[in-house]
Amino acid sequence: MEIALRELAAIIGGEVVGDGSVLISGIAGIREARPGTLTFLANRKYETFLETTGASAVIAAPGTRHSTKPLVLTENPYLVFIKAVEFFVPSGSEGPPSIHPSAIVAPNASVGAGVSIGANCVIEAGVRIGDGSAIHAGAYLGRNTRLGAGCVVYPNVTIREDITLGNRVIVHSGAVIGSDGFGFVKEGEVYRKIPQVGDVVIEDNVEIGANVTIDRATTGTTYVGAGTKIDNLVQIGHNVVIGENCILVAQVGVGGSTQIGKGVTLAGQSGLVGHIDIGDGAVVGAQAGVTKSVPAGMTVSGYPAREHVQANKILASLQKLPELMKKVADLGQRVRKLEEKGK
Amino acid sequence: MEIALRELAAIIGGEVVGDGSVLISGIAGIREARPGTLTFLANRKYETFLETTGASAVIAAPGTRHSTKPLVLTENPYLVFIKAVEFFVPSGSEGPPSIHPSAIVAPNASVGAGVSIGANCVIEAGVRIGDGSAIHAGAYLGRNTRLGAGCVVYPNVTIREDITLGNRVIVHSGAVIGSDGFGFVKEGEVYRKIPQVGDVVIEDNVEIGANVTIDRATTGTTYVGAGTKIDNLVQIGHNVVIGENCILVAQVGVGGSTQIGKGVTLAGQSGLVGHIDIGDGAVVGAQAGVTKSVPAGMTVSGYPAREHVQANKILASLQKLPELMKKVADLGQRVRKLEEKGK
Amino acid sequence: MEIALRELAAIIGGEVVGDGSVLISGIAGIREARPGTLTFLANRKYETFLETTGASAVIAAPGTRHSTKPLVLTENPYLVFIKAVEFFVPSGSEGPPSIHPSAIVAPNASVGAGVSIGANCVIEAGVRIGDGSAIHAGAYLGRNTRLGAGCVVYPNVTIREDITLGNRVIVHSGAVIGSDGFGFVKEGEVYRKIPQVGDVVIEDNVEIGANVTIDRATTGTTYVGAGTKIDNLVQIGHNVVIGENCILVAQVGVGGSTQIGKGVTLAGQSGLVGHIDIGDGAVVGAQAGVTKSVPAGMTVSGYPAREHVQANKILASLQKLPELMKKVADLGQRVRKLEEKGK
Repeated sequence: MEIALRELAAIIGGEVVGDGSVLISGIAGIREARPGTLTFLANRKYETFLETTGASAVIAAPGTRHSTKPLVLTENPYLVFIKAVEFFVPSGSEGPPSIHPSAIVAPNASVGAGVSIGANCVIEAGVRIGDGSAIHAGAYLGRNTRLGAGCVVYPNVTIREDITLGNRVIVHSGAVIGSDGFGFVKEGEVYRKIPQVGDVVIEDNVEIGANVTIDRATTGTTYVGAGTKIDNLVQIGHNVVIGENCILVAQVGVGGSTQIGKGVTLAGQSGLVGHIDIGDGAVVGAQAGVTKSVPAGMTVSGYPAREHVQANKILASLQKLPELMKKVADLGQRVRKLEEKGK
Repeated sequence: MEIALRELAAIIGGEVVGDGSVLISGIAGIREARPGTLTFLANRKYETFLETTGASAVIAAPGTRHSTKPLVLTENPYLVFIKAVEFFVPSGSEGPPSIHPSAIVAPNASVGAGVSIGANCVIEAGVRIGDGSAIHAGAYLGRNTRLGAGCVVYPNVTIREDITLGNRVIVHSGAVIGSDGFGFVKEGEVYRKIPQVGDVVIEDNVEIGANVTIDRATTGTTYVGAGTKIDNLVQIGHNVVIGENCILVAQVGVGGSTQIGKGVTLAGQSGLVGHIDIGDGAVVGAQAGVTKSVPAGMTVSGYPAREHVQANKILASLQKLPELMKKVADLGQRVRKLEEKGK
Repeated sequence: MEIALRELAAIIGGEVVGDGSVLISGIAGIREARPGTLTFLANRKYETFLETTGASAVIAAPGTRHSTKPLVLTENPYLVFIKAVEFFVPSGSEGPPSIHPSAIVAPNASVGAGVSIGANCVIEAGVRIGDGSAIHAGAYLGRNTRLGAGCVVYPNVTIREDITLGNRVIVHSGAVIGSDGFGFVKEGEVYRKIPQVGDVVIEDNVEIGANVTIDRATTGTTYVGAGTKIDNLVQIGHNVVIGENCILVAQVGVGGSTQIGKGVTLAGQSGLVGHIDIGDGAVVGAQAGVTKSVPAGMTVSGYPAREHVQANKILASLQKLPELMKKVADLGQRVRKLEEKGK
């Protein structure tokens, strides 16, 4: 389906600046966009993409720099973009909420209004599911686990017993929440298991990626604060506490009992040892190995992770190291000559 | 079962050179092989293993260097080896293709000839499965997903809606294809989800390891080219494009929108940031952290990844760094002496 | 529930030293413990935590150093702690063992006494499950797979065909045991699959974390020795052999055919290439990249992994590298001056 930008804006909102006759056939992210698509600029930081994006038009806020592209100006580019998504990718195809006859739901489970439960789901005794949540095929909710309203649990997720999810939590396929923490006592050569009898609490608006693992606490609670987004294949150890609005990129690992503040970013494949504190707003670089606590607001990188500017200086020097070795060898010869001369 | 090499060759093909009376009781890879087994040499690069392998005989191509081991010469060692595998490990034990009565198959799903669907599988509306494919127990195929002919989907795999797999694609247990890309817009402190409405296309002869995650595109397509082999626990971000015949070893991570050429090798635990290009035939070393594009044919390693010879020089210098520091301290003293003398 | 320490000790065993009237309401690990909890000290190494723990009382062995905290002295702190766990966290809530009517159990599978099989499990032909094992919902056991007594298989685990587990093995959700090894032969540009016809043997008392992947051998056996504990998201390649009582922390990767001795520790996110030997008692640091064999008892770290003291020296030098570069530049100028003077 193609539609002129002007007509589309009449449906989704916003004021067209520039050529309103350009034809739009889909939506796209600003970096991936191809001709014929409409994208959006939600953050001034990305204004440089305005010229390089392949999109045919851009939703943006008033005050955005001039562009050769037609713009759709609105106070809330994100919301107008969501409307454009709904226009081009109608969702309704999933049908009305229902409980599939093959789902096994314990008699005393409490299922809210408008809840969907997919084929072959297993909902154990004492589970409570809030209004409008969707549990997709093959998912497992253990005894006494509670989900708030508007949650989405994708196929083949495992949420063990006594876990608490807030509202609008999204859990992607294959994720495991509430597996045992990794705790053992060494007796001679043998490791004996410490019972893992704590739980996990996930607050509102958290998103948990595919095949993520979040261990239950030894005792007490493993905790993920509201609005935190966790990418695929991330490992969260027992008794970890993560603040609000953090970003954990794919394949990050967080050791047991580590505490992470608010607004922290952990880039891909970075690892944090257990029992340290990461301050609010800290940023950990990709593949960094964090071995000690990081103050609020600091960016760290490398192994062992150091303050980023310092780490970069070291990396820059490192590149010149072979050259430095030659210089030192040359200096050595010249000093020897001087010494011989002075005899 | 034991069989003389000469008799075995009469069944599987190939000409015996050397002692044909040696008894063979099984098959093995050239590096793992123990006495009594038959192995194969498919690549001249591995000729050095001819003498060190524990195998009692080796399938090889004519022109292979002399060996103290009996050889089975054939123009196609690989095919003869496959026949040996079939001789020692008969497969037929899985029985004729069938759809298990517990499988939940949407009425309008299209299931080809000779397709197996295992117990408790869920096949959603609009799915199409090509001839001879096998979907094992507990697997999930989302709405409108299409599989070609001869695919094998192992137990507890999740393939979300609108995904396309070519012919002879193998997907191992726990893999998730089509989970949402990790895309958010920051509004103040809060991250808001960008709808992920693209798809995933997997071409012919791709193999996808256990617990791999491949995200769907934000818009457009996440793409894996024909013949590419992906090991366990690999993460492929949204909008990634991977060319033909690549190798991705276990626990590799590829950031969103990165483009990978043909014949690329990414060694274990390496990570690539998003939005870069990896040229045809490039090789990324184990645990390397690739932060910028890599030209075709280049081998890179280390963090940040550099051309491999240069990276190795730096590593070699690094090992001598403590010694270098002593040398410089010593030079400092000698220069001071010379300066004092010259006063 | 609160109980005086004195009364609790009468139930769980041990002799109270110090204030027996302190109230206890739960149990906790020594590092996570908060006031009101009882913890335990099973290893002298952790005596330093005696003063810093938040716990109100500590179970410890006779001869433990003096503490301001009340102690419960016993020859076996671990067992008394387990009794305390059972006191505060009664387990019985799972009900008697049973086979859920939705489970699909092959007629010729052999199921021991007191075995539980959860909803929607699939147990294929020829499977044998030892007495008292519990297979939780949605788990899959492939053809001819054998489990010993007292095993626990959590929801949505996949154990493929012909796999052997000993007694008291624990497998957490999402783990995959027996997926194909990653083995291919290159013919021109194309990779052809080497059939993976070996198996996996897991010995007694092994614990396997959530979303772990353990590949079956190409031929022969991938082997995990008794008492070894594997954390979440670990990858074990085909034909790997792991000795007894090892610890593999989260996100570790072990390349194909590598052999690991007894009592080895692999810290988080470390990676081992294939075809090397790790000696008994060796320790591999977090994120280390091990490229060659490690002798028994050695600790290694870094990339490429080196003996730890040497690796630390290099890291310490590295931190001073920018400063060293300045020193060398300064020396260069001073030597030039000396040279000019001497002309």
